[in-house]
Amino acid sequence: MTYDLVVIGAGPGGFDAAADAAGYGLKVALVEKQFLGGTCLNRGCIPTKLWLGATSAVEELHNQAKMKVASGEVKVDFPALQARAGKHLAGTRKAMAMQLKKLGIDLIEGTGRLRDGKVSVETGNGEQVLEYENLVLATGSKPVFFPGLEPDGDCVLDSDMFLAMEEMPRSLVVIGAGFIGLEMAQVAHRFGAKVTVVDAMDRVAPLEDPEVSKALASVFKRWKWDVLLEKRVAGVTTEGGKGVLTLDTREKIEADKILVAVGRGPVTEGLGLEQAGVELMMNKVVVDENLMAAPNIYAVGDANGHIQLAHAASHQAHYVAARIAGRTDAPYESGPVPSVLYGAPEVMRVGMMDNEAFLTDFDTAETSKAMLAANPMAQAHASTQGFVKVVWSAGKVVGVTAVGHDVSRLVTPATMIVQQGWTVEDADKTIFPHPSLDESLLMALKGERTRVG
Amino acid sequence: MTYDLVVIGAGPGGFDAAADAAGYGLKVALVEKQFLGGTCLNRGCIPTKLWLGATSAVEELHNQAKMKVASGEVKVDFPALQARAGKHLAGTRKAMAMQLKKLGIDLIEGTGRLRDGKVSVETGNGEQVLEYENLVLATGSKPVFFPGLEPDGDCVLDSDMFLAMEEMPRSLVVIGAGFIGLEMAQVAHRFGAKVTVVDAMDRVAPLEDPEVSKALASVFKRWKWDVLLEKRVAGVTTEGGKGVLTLDTREKIEADKILVAVGRGPVTEGLGLEQAGVELMMNKVVVDENLMAAPNIYAVGDANGHIQLAHAASHQAHYVAARIAGRTDAPYESGPVPSVLYGAPEVMRVGMMDNEAFLTDFDTAETSKAMLAANPMAQAHASTQGFVKVVWSAGKVVGVTAVGHDVSRLVTPATMIVQQGWTVEDADKTIFPHPSLDESLLMALKGERTRVG
Repeated sequence: MTYDLVVIGAGPGGFDAAADAAGYGLKVALVEKQFLGGTCLNRGCIPTKLWLGATSAVEELHNQAKMKVASGEVKVDFPALQARAGKHLAGTRKAMAMQLKKLGIDLIEGTGRLRDGKVSVETGNGEQVLEYENLVLATGSKPVFFPGLEPDGDCVLDSDMFLAMEEMPRSLVVIGAGFIGLEMAQVAHRFGAKVTVVDAMDRVAPLEDPEVSKALASVFKRWKWDVLLEKRVAGVTTEGGKGVLTLDTREKIEADKILVAVGRGPVTEGLGLEQAGVELMMNKVVVDENLMAAPNIYAVGDANGHIQLAHAASHQAHYVAARIAGRTDAPYESGPVPSVLYGAPEVMRVGMMDNEAFLTDFDTAETSKAMLAANPMAQAHASTQGFVKVVWSAGKVVGVTAVGHDVSRLVTPATMIVQQGWTVEDADKTIFPHPSLDESLLMALKGERTRVG
Repeated sequence: MTYDLVVIGAGPGGFDAAADAAGYGLKVALVEKQFLGGTCLNRGCIPTKLWLGATSAVEELHNQAKMKVASGEVKVDFPALQARAGKHLAGTRKAMAMQLKKLGIDLIEGTGRLRDGKVSVETGNGEQVLEYENLVLATGSKPVFFPGLEPDGDCVLDSDMFLAMEEMPRSLVVIGAGFIGLEMAQVAHRFGAKVTVVDAMDRVAPLEDPEVSKALASVFKRWKWDVLLEKRVAGVTTEGGKGVLTLDTREKIEADKILVAVGRGPVTEGLGLEQAGVELMMNKVVVDENLMAAPNIYAVGDANGHIQLAHAASHQAHYVAARIAGRTDAPYESGPVPSVLYGAPEVMRVGMMDNEAFLTDFDTAETSKAMLAANPMAQAHASTQGFVKVVWSAGKVVGVTAVGHDVSRLVTPATMIVQQGWTVEDADKTIFPHPSLDESLLMALKGERTRVG
């Protein structure tokens, strides 16, 4: 039997491509070497959200205690949390497996490789060969390391190992001040860990707006984190049951655990991709405007390296499934992709930052801003640091960035606003609820504009 | 001197009308008999949000404790909270006064009445008479009572008195299961009070979708509230330091305090409105499609009784100011008005409910739904009861209703979606962040549709 579609990888991109294609009536096989749900469900977004959710009372109490309005103690039982997370993930995987069955999709468990125009899967019961009309590569990504920063699984951990810990360390060094490292550091902080963050760049969250980095840094300082910037790490090792980080200045930092979160790279090696005519660049699958890597071979999500976010992978997957089913022959159009750092404070971003707007349009790029200090919901949660910034080009909204209490709730309306290219008049037409954090977005939209540059 | 505009009432509607008009270059006087900010800031939305924010850790801890993931205790100091709220409100009023000054608006403190085509203000220093070209009535609303339900200020309270309490009662009876009563009852519950809710209707939140009422009732039952429905109250009194409610069956219910929250009515009596040619109906100022009550006299917000929500008042105020300034002569168009019950669970609604859609369009009215049980953020906060329901008419979204953890964050995107009349294809074009509670709205948009009726 020849499948209409074989998908390699059952993360958000692969799963959605398979489900959509089956919904369109295609015969589909989904190949997964480990867990349904991939990194996002099993070792990424979902477990960190369970950790942040379980500890959110710690932060809420802390803020009210600062105001002398509340007192007490919230104790989170880490082993109980891990047991709950494990059960939750298993339950979600089971629900996904049932969905596949209901859709008539064959789940093939094993490592899939391309060979002679077919997919060879190394399963527990030997090799299984799948013939296909179309192939979707959704192989995802894995943590990457600079030489000397490899985790040893003892006291030096990557994010997978960190999420699998049985107890929370009392001191933690995080190498890499991006969203992954910062979310995990924040959870450790809520468990009372002493946190040190090390980054080679000159600011935390170096991919975000510099003002966002500044706001985050000021919160971390209040939390008494050690934030070490512009530091190069020479090596990390486990010595006498402790993690030891050595800077290139030979200075040493010791902690119970060291989390290396310097980035993730595509999983594309050893899959026979080049032999099948797929081009790789820096391990990323090169795709054209139709997300096609070679005739009848597509790549979605982290594998093509466009953007490492689950919802971007899913959006690409919906397109590819529709294309394979003959529902569209237009090139892929992404639209603005939102990104979120969860926790407290949160960060959200969609569309352009001001420097990007300036580069594409230095004549009319503008920003407008609202401070959370003026927002009643931020005030009610005693967490008023932060702001919402709107980026304009030619009088239309091209980007929104925010940092502070609960700003993740701005991201969907902001995505719609950027996608629709709102003018300030559009903002006047829509009624925002009062009181709400959402009003800070309205205030920013209506705020005084300043030229960028 | 004749003012271009005199505004009576400095709540959200009156303040915004004055501020906008001054921004358009008009000479404006704002008359306020008590506090800048009106009911919303001083005795309504804002203090309740401060209470809910201060106690949110109680609810978060409770949910995680149920999962045996967390333990401990959060104690909120009610007098400290009241002191903080008082300071906060005073600070906000001060900021508003400064904004008026900056805009060149004359704030006249006293009760304004219409007399001989002028506004007579009874101030602390005697009468002040204001001449005007245009007048905006933004006199707001106050609690109303059926006979026998009048508060005595001792153990029988209206919402104003409730918000001014110096200690939280250990037992509370709330008469009226609308949003105002339910938000306040929820705070009392978080302080450990024994809560009883009494309503004459057959369900809580009787203005909402019946499924929302059912979901709320099930949560209240778990919280061990006594919810007494279809009960008529014969009277409420204070007896021996306790509030005593008597049902028409002669059954008596006793509690430390009784909150009467059966509704609010416009403040329009004794202001000389009829003599000025303004028509009142059930105390509401009757306005035309331009929000005009008489030549050059407008009414916005609770005074015209269209909808008792601060953001609706503000939206009307923006229109009226623009109209008076000659910026528009089109009739007023509201667009969909969102409403929110804050706390945990939350409720949100915008546009039509399914019964409304069915009445206007019984051929194509449909609903689609997503359960929060499937949402990872609801799961992370161990609060998975609830749903999002989308109401369709002729294949377009005409309403969204939701109940459950954090659903207030859906209200702004839902408002935009209803306003824009999305089809299901529009939903496919927008990337929702993963994981997020927002995805439950996407799931509901893409869910299977069922005919209404």
